Amino acid sequence: MSTVTGSVQAAIVTVGDELLLGQTVDTNAAWMGRHLASMGIPVTRRWTVGDDADDIRWAVSEAMRGGNLVLVTGGLGPTPDDFTRDVVAELLGRPLAEDPEILEMMRARYRTRGMDDLPAINRRIAEVPWGARKLANPHGAAPGLAMEGDGALVVLFPGVPRELRGIFQGDFTTLVSERFGESLPPVHLHLVHTTGIPESRLSEQVAERLPQGTAPAGLAFLPDVRGVDVRFTFIGLETPEVEGHVRRLEEALESVLTPWRFECASGDLAEAVADALRTRGRVLAVAESCTGGLVAKRLTDFPGASDVLEGGVVAYANEVKSAQLGVDPSVLARYGAVSEEVARRMAVGVAQRLGADAGIGVTGVAGPTGGTAEKPVGTVWYAAAVEGRSVARKERFPGDRKAVRERAAQAALFLLLRLLDGRVAADG
Amino acid sequence: MSTVTGSVQAAIVTVGDELLLGQTVDTNAAWMGRHLASMGIPVTRRWTVGDDADDIRWAVSEAMRGGNLVLVTGGLGPTPDDFTRDVVAELLGRPLAEDPEILEMMRARYRTRGMDDLPAINRRIAEVPWGARKLANPHGAAPGLAMEGDGALVVLFPGVPRELRGIFQGDFTTLVSERFGESLPPVHLHLVHTTGIPESRLSEQVAERLPQGTAPAGLAFLPDVRGVDVRFTFIGLETPEVEGHVRRLEEALESVLTPWRFECASGDLAEAVADALRTRGRVLAVAESCTGGLVAKRLTDFPGASDVLEGGVVAYANEVKSAQLGVDPSVLARYGAVSEEVARRMAVGVAQRLGADAGIGVTGVAGPTGGTAEKPVGTVWYAAAVEGRSVARKERFPGDRKAVRERAAQAALFLLLRLLDGRVAADG
Repeated sequence: MSTVTGSVQAAIVTVGDELLLGQTVDTNAAWMGRHLASMGIPVTRRWTVGDDADDIRWAVSEAMRGGNLVLVTGGLGPTPDDFTRDVVAELLGRPLAEDPEILEMMRARYRTRGMDDLPAINRRIAEVPWGARKLANPHGAAPGLAMEGDGALVVLFPGVPRELRGIFQGDFTTLVSERFGESLPPVHLHLVHTTGIPESRLSEQVAERLPQGTAPAGLAFLPDVRGVDVRFTFIGLETPEVEGHVRRLEEALESVLTPWRFECASGDLAEAVADALRTRGRVLAVAESCTGGLVAKRLTDFPGASDVLEGGVVAYANEVKSAQLGVDPSVLARYGAVSEEVARRMAVGVAQRLGADAGIGVTGVAGPTGGTAEKPVGTVWYAAAVEGRSVARKERFPGDRKAVRERAAQAALFLLLRLLDGRVAADG
Repeated sequence: MSTVTGSVQAAIVTVGDELLLGQTVDTNAAWMGRHLASMGIPVTRRWTVGDDADDIRWAVSEAMRGGNLVLVTGGLGPTPDDFTRDVVAELLGRPLAEDPEILEMMRARYRTRGMDDLPAINRRIAEVPWGARKLANPHGAAPGLAMEGDGALVVLFPGVPRELRGIFQGDFTTLVSERFGESLPPVHLHLVHTTGIPESRLSEQVAERLPQGTAPAGLAFLPDVRGVDVRFTFIGLETPEVEGHVRRLEEALESVLTPWRFECASGDLAEAVADALRTRGRVLAVAESCTGGLVAKRLTDFPGASDVLEGGVVAYANEVKSAQLGVDPSVLARYGAVSEEVARRMAVGVAQRLGADAGIGVTGVAGPTGGTAEKPVGTVWYAAAVEGRSVARKERFPGDRKAVRERAAQAALFLLLRLLDGRVAADG
């Protein structure tokens, strides 16, 4: 827990047979860990147990020994295998009582959906341990429930991710700052998104240039198949001090980071590309072979894509490359479908055909078959074009079919971003 | 743990600061839970701890009290914060010794990559607790390590998912059947993939028709945004008996399942569609508006897509729908882009233009903006066509932009599958 220090320590208990059996991946635990860390609260230990009263009792007791903030998720529903509410009430010596407010709210929800009355079984959701504070659930019936016991604050959340997140970001965050405010150091994060450089090389170069005496509290490299985020964490510093550190860091690391970085709210490069197109009043069209629609899909993941994306062509067959994109069959025959010439003509052709002024073209061997000695699996040519002038790159991406496709889509988007912002120049 | 019974009980310890901090979602734990369950071994409890020797010692000791099979993942690397090997060796009273075989294998890997000699730090990976059995790692340097202690079999796995899975499915599975074979009941799973019917309705209808006396050991509904898998688990029965149960179940549930089911190896409907096209010698082209490339992307996730997919057009702008797909501008003006007429013409038009004999068309309002009173967010028209004859459906999908797009892509693929296999007929 090197990045976070403080006097509040959290322990998490996640409840559900489906978690142990692996039918559900425990994304709640990771989400809560990330958000607690950004509040200056480290998670020290985590337990997962099934829908079993004894196991829940055991895990919550253990967790209360290990942390002064205990978060319990799951097992708050109405069915007979939902035990969390009962077990924790008993453990903390707080008898359950029906809460008229929750009951009325649930009845109202049922009426809105045109249903008669609340099924009897659902009344269990309205039961609240004596003296527990209810935390509003913006997306469901069961509120979060917060209680004190043996010096720990114990908070119960429903297991449905949307409901848990709504409660966490609302009433729970308020409660934590009320209860622990004094002991919580201010936490500032400075995040730099990069793509195209491996984690090992980036971390070496950053370490070499990190200025002495301005070292932030924590430095983390967060890699995934699309790129590496560099996160600087400042604990216990006031805003002006943090700003000073960030300025010095950015100056020292400029030459390392500039070739690889991009900026946007979501951290998804596709959003950065859409922002860059929007700022410059450009409209894009994409032509994809091996990525098969992935580039277009990523651009349209974001609302408002229609401002900057005319559309795309998935040119899996060579005939589609010729007929729909205007790639000359003789070029295909001469250089092969996976070639610089074809990538450039796809990028330029799709923009022309679809009435856009920017284009992307991607053609490669995603595998697992189809590789040759000259063009092994993972070989991808990709190109970006603006107003008919293009730039192209070739790479051999590692990994399986999925990884090659993800990396190719990312690389093509990044090439267009750099062409738009002047970090690379068109040469064809 | 209602679905699995037996005398072997597993406990899992996952190790890593990145898991507690939420930088990594613990997919290993779910994967192991699923695979152990299918071997007849329930996971009873799970611990997650950071890269801290005391915490690892504590969790492994606790786990050994709770299960006779203890799986520990992570913390086997060469860096100073990898403690698992040392802590478990100490806990079980087995001193570490350098294993010459592992060392030589690591040196060979380094030589292959053109590097001189093994960095000294990496030699830690070659240390093995006295008497531990090495489990081959097909994808990396660190082998799995299995040891007996206090009546439990303790197995250490690297945290890298690919390496963990390779060891688990190879030497670990062999070891478990050697060690526990007698106490492991045979487990058979029967899985039915469905889409288009909500979990609540499906489970009600299945419960109503489930035959008496043939009830399998376990029935689980596994929902996600794309559909619901129904899983029947048979524990302790021999194959012919299981086949009898499955036959009776399938007969009893035929009318419930037939409208919604699909079959394929991966459980991904896109693969079922590709299989159906291949069997029938059909080639597909797809035209997408709101799904923005997602249908094409899903079809090309699978190797061999080029046999059955000519390509696609992402027609985000209306001009692309007209120019590339031949949707008459007057139709667009009269009915609007989100309409039955446009969906049908997209499906028929894209097949014609791209030289395919089957087509898909999807047009809708993915949101969060762009909805109207008549066509609220989530409204999607989708169509499937074979040889110029089409069928179309309209739905209002719930959820956010991502969910609407996933559901629309899934529904369109399912409509084509049913048109191909005769469950629906073309009517336009």
